[in-house]
Amino acid sequence: MRGLWLAGGEVRFVPDLPEPGIEPDEALVRVLAAGICNTDLELVRGYYPYDGVPGHEFVGVADSLGAGVGADERERLLGRRVVGEINAACGSCRECRSGRPTHCLRRTVLGISARHGAFAEYLALPVRNLHAVPDAVSTDAAVFAEPLAAALEILEQVDVAPSDRVAVIGAGKLGILISQVLALTGCELSVVARSRSAGVDLLTSRGIHVCSTDEVKGRSIDLAVECTGNPEGYRIARAALRPRGTLILKSTYAGRLDVDPSAIVVDEITVIGSRCGPFRPALRLLERGQVSVEPLVEARFPLDQGPAAFERAARPGALKVLLEVGGP
Amino acid sequence: MRGLWLAGGEVRFVPDLPEPGIEPDEALVRVLAAGICNTDLELVRGYYPYDGVPGHEFVGVADSLGAGVGADERERLLGRRVVGEINAACGSCRECRSGRPTHCLRRTVLGISARHGAFAEYLALPVRNLHAVPDAVSTDAAVFAEPLAAALEILEQVDVAPSDRVAVIGAGKLGILISQVLALTGCELSVVARSRSAGVDLLTSRGIHVCSTDEVKGRSIDLAVECTGNPEGYRIARAALRPRGTLILKSTYAGRLDVDPSAIVVDEITVIGSRCGPFRPALRLLERGQVSVEPLVEARFPLDQGPAAFERAARPGALKVLLEVGGP
Repeated sequence: MRGLWLAGGEVRFVPDLPEPGIEPDEALVRVLAAGICNTDLELVRGYYPYDGVPGHEFVGVADSLGAGVGADERERLLGRRVVGEINAACGSCRECRSGRPTHCLRRTVLGISARHGAFAEYLALPVRNLHAVPDAVSTDAAVFAEPLAAALEILEQVDVAPSDRVAVIGAGKLGILISQVLALTGCELSVVARSRSAGVDLLTSRGIHVCSTDEVKGRSIDLAVECTGNPEGYRIARAALRPRGTLILKSTYAGRLDVDPSAIVVDEITVIGSRCGPFRPALRLLERGQVSVEPLVEARFPLDQGPAAFERAARPGALKVLLEVGGP
Repeated sequence: MRGLWLAGGEVRFVPDLPEPGIEPDEALVRVLAAGICNTDLELVRGYYPYDGVPGHEFVGVADSLGAGVGADERERLLGRRVVGEINAACGSCRECRSGRPTHCLRRTVLGISARHGAFAEYLALPVRNLHAVPDAVSTDAAVFAEPLAAALEILEQVDVAPSDRVAVIGAGKLGILISQVLALTGCELSVVARSRSAGVDLLTSRGIHVCSTDEVKGRSIDLAVECTGNPEGYRIARAALRPRGTLILKSTYAGRLDVDPSAIVVDEITVIGSRCGPFRPALRLLERGQVSVEPLVEARFPLDQGPAAFERAARPGALKVLLEVGGP
């Protein structure tokens, strides 16, 4: 099959990759479209050692199912458009048994760890990871199910009250999704953006307040979400927080943070790391049109121009770059 | 009055300090005994700029009350043994109005910030900060009300379930109080101590498991409490945590932490700073004998030997050093 291959920090197009085999509980998914995420760019930069097919945001069609998949699941999935949770869990380790399958100790992660990803004609995932895409959700929009689920993870972790003052630091791809999700709570929301972009215009058009760092009053914010992917974002978020405020870390990147532990103690700050989230609510928000994602598509590339797509996605301020992999 | 004076990183005994004046809502407290805390030692080391009378753990007698204090409060406090919350709040700022008086934006803090402390014959505090000491609680034990309240703050901030696996890193003065408080929940508790001490013996005698760093299995702990006062304690606590575990920071010290933000995101760790806590439950635990504190008294010094008391308290592994200030 045709696909992209990441090795030694370089992404190449390969015309003749082997198709992935499937386990009895897995589906072979024919990829329609896939999105490039900051984590993909960080993998290229060496944030985490991974050689293989990258990509974890996708929409595909469940083309064939393993021998162990029952009739109900066949009915639910076979031949349908699907999106997929990226952590394939063992189901039996301590974390799985404790209800934390995204933290499975033996997990593979689509396009990130020990499982080939979505920037190829086919991928394999356990059927329990797959969700059928409602007809009302376009294929472009469904590519955003994975990052939208990650945005929703914040609301799985902390209660956001309608009267809370919330700041999102960073108006990149993920920041814009997080901002739209948090705005649904009715909270008093400020999004800190460095410059104007189509994403900022989208937020503004939806009545969401976008501002510069200087406009965020220090020590005033109940909940700050860092999604810039650099230590400066942490510093802005930390300075904005009121005593006993909460700081969500949302970006994975190769870098360290220099933290003042005493100030965290004196101000009794809570810092929470936040990663993958729930797909069903993400699909519901897309189906109901409660978040707008299609304006975030900045460019489309065919699979064999994958390296150029990565270059485009790495431009400062770039929004979502899609790889168009297969036809419907 | 006689008292200690901290300036330029040096503690001196001064025989003729002025007595503190009191505001209409304050009490003049004649100090009986006071304890030296790690924060006092950190102030000497320059963790925070403070010139004045240090000391914030004390028991005293409410000798006189301001003109604005009503009859009920006089009845409750005058002539009685009292302990006191150390943050004097304005009552009107945004934090006070939001129910966070320990984070008052205009607060003074006994012996730490803009308010002379307890290592002197007299101190002044608002009467609303004072709690009468039950007769069943000795003066020695009541000195521990303040750090015991700080230990209880953890349970104000997080739910600890009886089946949780908990690790306390550090068996110093505060670590021993925290360990005893957490043990009351029934949790599976391990206290990481570097060496044997009277405090470790106290924990062991109460059936609390004390161990070395090597004995804490990595990625296995639900809640880890860092109270060593150094970055190594953070590293031990962090390594012990399971995915989605909680790390409580309890120490204030002059130093920085080098944190891997991506690992916090990937493991969805929660880090919470924790400071001053509730006095009433602390006094209840002391009255009921549910925690043992008197074995932690390592040495006693009269006030005029304050500098020697600080030296003793700064010895590695030292437990509580008391200053005996006034007679009953």
